[in-house]
Amino acid sequence: METTDKTGCKILVELLVQKGIKRVVLSPGSRNAPLIIAFVREPRIEHFIVLDERSAAFIALGMAQQSGDPVVLACTSGTALLNYAPAVAEAFYQHLPLVVISADRPEEWIDQNDSQTIRQRDVFRNYVKASYSFPAEINCNDEHWYINRMINEAVNLSQDGLPGPVHINIPLREPLYRVKNYENSELERTVNTLYAEQQIGKEMMAELANTVASYKKVMVLASFGTPDMTLNKALEAIADCCNIVVLTETVANLSSHKFIQTIDRVLSAMTQDEKKSLAPELLITFGGSLISKMVKTWLRNYRPIEHWHISPSNHIVDTMQCLTRHIAVQPYGFWRQLSGCIKDGGSNYAELWQNLKLRATYSHSKYIDTIPWCDLKAFSQLLPAIPEGTVLQLSNSTPVRYAQLFEYEQVKRVDCNRGTSGIDGATSTAVGASWVNEEKTIFITGDMGFLYDSNALWSHYVTPKLKIVVMCNDGGGIFRFIQGPSELPELEEFFETYRQVDVEGFARLHGFSCWSVFEEQALQNVLPAFFAEKESASILAVHTPREVNDRILNGYFKRK
Amino acid sequence: METTDKTGCKILVELLVQKGIKRVVLSPGSRNAPLIIAFVREPRIEHFIVLDERSAAFIALGMAQQSGDPVVLACTSGTALLNYAPAVAEAFYQHLPLVVISADRPEEWIDQNDSQTIRQRDVFRNYVKASYSFPAEINCNDEHWYINRMINEAVNLSQDGLPGPVHINIPLREPLYRVKNYENSELERTVNTLYAEQQIGKEMMAELANTVASYKKVMVLASFGTPDMTLNKALEAIADCCNIVVLTETVANLSSHKFIQTIDRVLSAMTQDEKKSLAPELLITFGGSLISKMVKTWLRNYRPIEHWHISPSNHIVDTMQCLTRHIAVQPYGFWRQLSGCIKDGGSNYAELWQNLKLRATYSHSKYIDTIPWCDLKAFSQLLPAIPEGTVLQLSNSTPVRYAQLFEYEQVKRVDCNRGTSGIDGATSTAVGASWVNEEKTIFITGDMGFLYDSNALWSHYVTPKLKIVVMCNDGGGIFRFIQGPSELPELEEFFETYRQVDVEGFARLHGFSCWSVFEEQALQNVLPAFFAEKESASILAVHTPREVNDRILNGYFKRK
Repeated sequence: METTDKTGCKILVELLVQKGIKRVVLSPGSRNAPLIIAFVREPRIEHFIVLDERSAAFIALGMAQQSGDPVVLACTSGTALLNYAPAVAEAFYQHLPLVVISADRPEEWIDQNDSQTIRQRDVFRNYVKASYSFPAEINCNDEHWYINRMINEAVNLSQDGLPGPVHINIPLREPLYRVKNYENSELERTVNTLYAEQQIGKEMMAELANTVASYKKVMVLASFGTPDMTLNKALEAIADCCNIVVLTETVANLSSHKFIQTIDRVLSAMTQDEKKSLAPELLITFGGSLISKMVKTWLRNYRPIEHWHISPSNHIVDTMQCLTRHIAVQPYGFWRQLSGCIKDGGSNYAELWQNLKLRATYSHSKYIDTIPWCDLKAFSQLLPAIPEGTVLQLSNSTPVRYAQLFEYEQVKRVDCNRGTSGIDGATSTAVGASWVNEEKTIFITGDMGFLYDSNALWSHYVTPKLKIVVMCNDGGGIFRFIQGPSELPELEEFFETYRQVDVEGFARLHGFSCWSVFEEQALQNVLPAFFAEKESASILAVHTPREVNDRILNGYFKRK
Repeated sequence: METTDKTGCKILVELLVQKGIKRVVLSPGSRNAPLIIAFVREPRIEHFIVLDERSAAFIALGMAQQSGDPVVLACTSGTALLNYAPAVAEAFYQHLPLVVISADRPEEWIDQNDSQTIRQRDVFRNYVKASYSFPAEINCNDEHWYINRMINEAVNLSQDGLPGPVHINIPLREPLYRVKNYENSELERTVNTLYAEQQIGKEMMAELANTVASYKKVMVLASFGTPDMTLNKALEAIADCCNIVVLTETVANLSSHKFIQTIDRVLSAMTQDEKKSLAPELLITFGGSLISKMVKTWLRNYRPIEHWHISPSNHIVDTMQCLTRHIAVQPYGFWRQLSGCIKDGGSNYAELWQNLKLRATYSHSKYIDTIPWCDLKAFSQLLPAIPEGTVLQLSNSTPVRYAQLFEYEQVKRVDCNRGTSGIDGATSTAVGASWVNEEKTIFITGDMGFLYDSNALWSHYVTPKLKIVVMCNDGGGIFRFIQGPSELPELEEFFETYRQVDVEGFARLHGFSCWSVFEEQALQNVLPAFFAEKESASILAVHTPREVNDRILNGYFKRK
């Protein structure tokens, strides 16, 4: 095969193919020309070309999130690489495998006033699993061996334990555009790491099961994670115990009528007495960071006797400030094991939660029925109307918070960039997600987030499978969930600043179909056509009055 | 005064005022609410509110570039900060003072699965002059003293020697929105660093002057810098010596008929013999990284006997691989000193260069006259038509390269982000620049760069003083200056990807006046009205045929 004469790049791509990499997102540049040539001439890896590296990296993140496979990013030297930073940090905390590749000048040229040259080595050290740097050339077998080993390690590491991003920096000497024939080159050697199955010893597991059974009030609390049938079944078995309640956040992607799936809806219906009486004695958490501030505040105020956190990491995460046991295994393994030896602790704890859930659902429905047109009303119409088997993407911060108040079993999976909870790349993430998913992807975002990541709309990878709902509330979400700003009149300037985001104008500019609604009945009427549109990607602009949204949501949390 | 109850933030803003800070660019968030309150309630600092932190940081960079004053950036925790990275790196290598402030959670909350929390400390270590981190609270006088000292040092350091960005990370504990009355608080103590005037000793200077006079061929080569009348005069005196030629890049902001101000125009007219005979024996360089690849390649091929580089840094920058002396003082001081004791080396070197310049100018004009409508033609019309006293901003990479081929004395100053030569934030930089300049700012960009930084257009700080020219050549600039890609057919995909950037659509969406031209006469006709427009910011889309642009530019460099 004829490809770049930069042997390091040729080896890299060859090895990525052999290690099962399926996708690379490339951003144009000069220094990375050898990488572009190597990837574009490799038919076994699908390549995507995205100009804005910030958007490119979030598109790759969306693909990694939905597929579970590592996705490769490749950019040129200089600040191009730094534009990857937000998505790399999100991947690190959302535990998604990205293989970030940057072209660079040879090390001797760093800080020599040659253009597009910055100190790229280790530039992501705060938020990657590891950083690698190639030698500028392969002059001997040892250097070939070294590159082979780095690539093998990088790809393995991106998927190991808690997956995450890795960074490979590749210095390249000019000339950059030459090609070479590698007719009879040998296959690159792959090194596959076989990790031992992580298991808690049988005796220890029996002891843990006994401890669980010994408490009258045991709460399992699941934050974000990918759909996993085995895990779901194991947790359903656990939830059969009378002394155990299972609380799942929307993005935990767990589903059962036995679970409490609308944490904020249920917690906000609690009486003061219940806050005390329903507080767990044993709390078991797993998954990433929690969306619900309510559950965190409540558990920090009513601390359990024991808190176990399950995560295959060597790092202690003590979100509720009362951790007593860090169980360092994969959650699905732990729950499968525990479900095999669990004993019912025999209390009415689960029943009390189910009763509370019924009451909360009743008061929820009653409240929703009485409110006028607003964000909450719009979500109450929108979410149930989402078609069966759809994939849902939510942006930070208000859409994911509203979404937590509802149940929508018909949705296949729900994701939100909760690793770092930024608003920066949600649209690009949805574009990447919708590309790899067979199903429709519905993306719900705020107008600020929509504006922030508008470069995502300028992508050749937006397809009719992607449906974007923009909640147009004049950036009303920034300070919504925090007490205070209404008493600080000058902060109004921050609201004012982002009024009138012209969502319809963006839709026209980028060739999306577009619908706009300003009231309840119009939304109801438009939803079927919006979801059914098959010709082009579509945007639905849902305009709500900022001034009443806050009041109504605050009222919801005070409903009894 | 009533302001945030976070004493650290109050001290920070008070001290920034006293240290002469005039501007802060704020991006909305929750964690940085105390900073927002403190800045918004401080009338002595002008505040700007920009949603997208990437754009915000480049706007601040444009302000710092034009004013010379440090500009403050303040954002919330999490990936918000990482979006500053490209502009921070550019400021580092362009030597511009930015004071980057990030709100953070208190250190004990890092990596505890609480949202919008990443490892922010030292996150910019590769490209800031220093990083600081406040204690989360001020519980004693020593902590107050510590904060005071850090702020003093950070602001001083941002302006010292080679100016650059500094990063202050500020952990903040909830509640974030409280205010407090500081009726009788004392003024904060400022520490002003008085640096010794850097001077080369008299005897050493005389020795240097003798060395300069001893060579028959001395070349002074100036890359990017800010306008400086003293420096300009000193260099004019230097250029009076018959053995010295002064070459200045467009963004050096130096101006005299004695200088060679169109390096690429003149160098491309050299014969093979001249390449050898006009190569300097002594090369003296100052300023940032060079735009002209031609001059770098030539000087690396025909190395001078001595190369002196003037920069007040402790870092050796050896761009031409033949450095013999690093003169660690500010360039303006060095040239002022040298101009006072310079002796004419008495050769015809300067004359030969002036002759070459005349010949190059003649062949330049002749070539331009013969060519059809293309980028080069458009620049030849555009640049001379720019009104007197205008400030010019250029984007990477093709606009700044074309601009190097022309002289336009009427322009007050010319800038381009040549620190790292990225395309990422040029429009935002121009927006910031135009805000602080009294004069009109003309910004010339390519369609790719325009698209990349389109969020800059969504800014309340775009005024009728800003005139944007977009060279619409279907992203033709990416690989233009590099040999090879035309022989790699699959790279055509990269061109195809960015065809049809709808510049006019963006203009409409963001409420700009807009003109489009597709040929020579139309451009000629439209320029007066475009430059004169006073009601709104304006965009001029100059459409040129990508296919011929390369060929014509290559022809230019081969003209004799």
